[in-house]
Amino acid sequence: MGLLGEGINEIIATTRNNAAPIGIIVKDGSLRMVLFHGTHTLENIRRDGWVVANIVHDPVIYVKTAFDDLPEDFFCNETYGDLEVQRLKDASAWIAFKTEIERESGEAAIVRLVPVAEEIIDNSIYPVNRGFNSVIEATVHGTRYVMNRDPWLKQLIDHHASLVRKCGGSREREALELLLGYIME
Amino acid sequence: MGLLGEGINEIIATTRNNAAPIGIIVKDGSLRMVLFHGTHTLENIRRDGWVVANIVHDPVIYVKTAFDDLPEDFFCNETYGDLEVQRLKDASAWIAFKTEIERESGEAAIVRLVPVAEEIIDNSIYPVNRGFNSVIEATVHGTRYVMNRDPWLKQLIDHHASLVRKCGGSREREALELLLGYIME
Repeated sequence: MGLLGEGINEIIATTRNNAAPIGIIVKDGSLRMVLFHGTHTLENIRRDGWVVANIVHDPVIYVKTAFDDLPEDFFCNETYGDLEVQRLKDASAWIAFKTEIERESGEAAIVRLVPVAEEIIDNSIYPVNRGFNSVIEATVHGTRYVMNRDPWLKQLIDHHASLVRKCGGSREREALELLLGYIME
Repeated sequence: MGLLGEGINEIIATTRNNAAPIGIIVKDGSLRMVLFHGTHTLENIRRDGWVVANIVHDPVIYVKTAFDDLPEDFFCNETYGDLEVQRLKDASAWIAFKTEIERESGEAAIVRLVPVAEEIIDNSIYPVNRGFNSVIEATVHGTRYVMNRDPWLKQLIDHHASLVRKCGGSREREALELLLGYIME
């Protein structure tokens, strides 16, 4: 599976001028994404037939791409044969995929991924940090919470926010403040 | 800070024939552990004056060392000058510290860490996996839950258990089953 592991890999997916946190499901040797209709990622994949998985260790990028557009200068181009793709400039590693829409339901499309190129840029070691992990959790819950204001999601966000404050570094605390700004009522 | 980052680094601490998951607090350029009285890690540090931080990506090791002793063949020796320390054989990286007990309260001791040696053995890239992260969360909550049976901790453990099943790979699911065995009433 190259750089990805079994289970769901939470990467930042880049398509043409677009970035969003997405899970890549690795199961029985196949790689897939489930993408909701109406998202830029799915529209761009339909048009261009490619997506790049960016492996990122900056918690601020997870929050920003979950709620907002990234400025153009966060992206750079990579060429593989006649395929030109875009990745995040600051990725620790990236994998470019050709895409194939495998199945569609009313809500979402299942996209099969075929890796065509990958590069490791920075293979620093990242020890487990519950603050970093809690930014990811609070971000996932936050994207749902802004839609439905579910009090259980709010409780989980509060729980993870306190873990970010206790266990995170300054970059995690910055990501948390940004997140709380996006989800505030 | 070498391999460690700002905030709390959740590593596996090894002392003589002992391993336990511990947080190393990195703040303002200093490294510290808070260790409770009566724990093997603190007793060994008091006697030997060293501890090794093992950076580990195997979720099963986090669960095992939180609740149980590791067999002797999980350890190996490293020598630095006249200091002989023990680390985990399967660590991705390790850092050996000389220790200094800085302060004691009724409950715990604050131990200052001075790095003396470090080695990176495997610098593979690990994409974010919410299943792996949830094994860590459920393990931390589990070690408290076995003491007090707090229903809120149980709710968090159930929440993270369902994330392990959804997002983890086979090693994460194995770690979860082991954990549930340890905390079962």
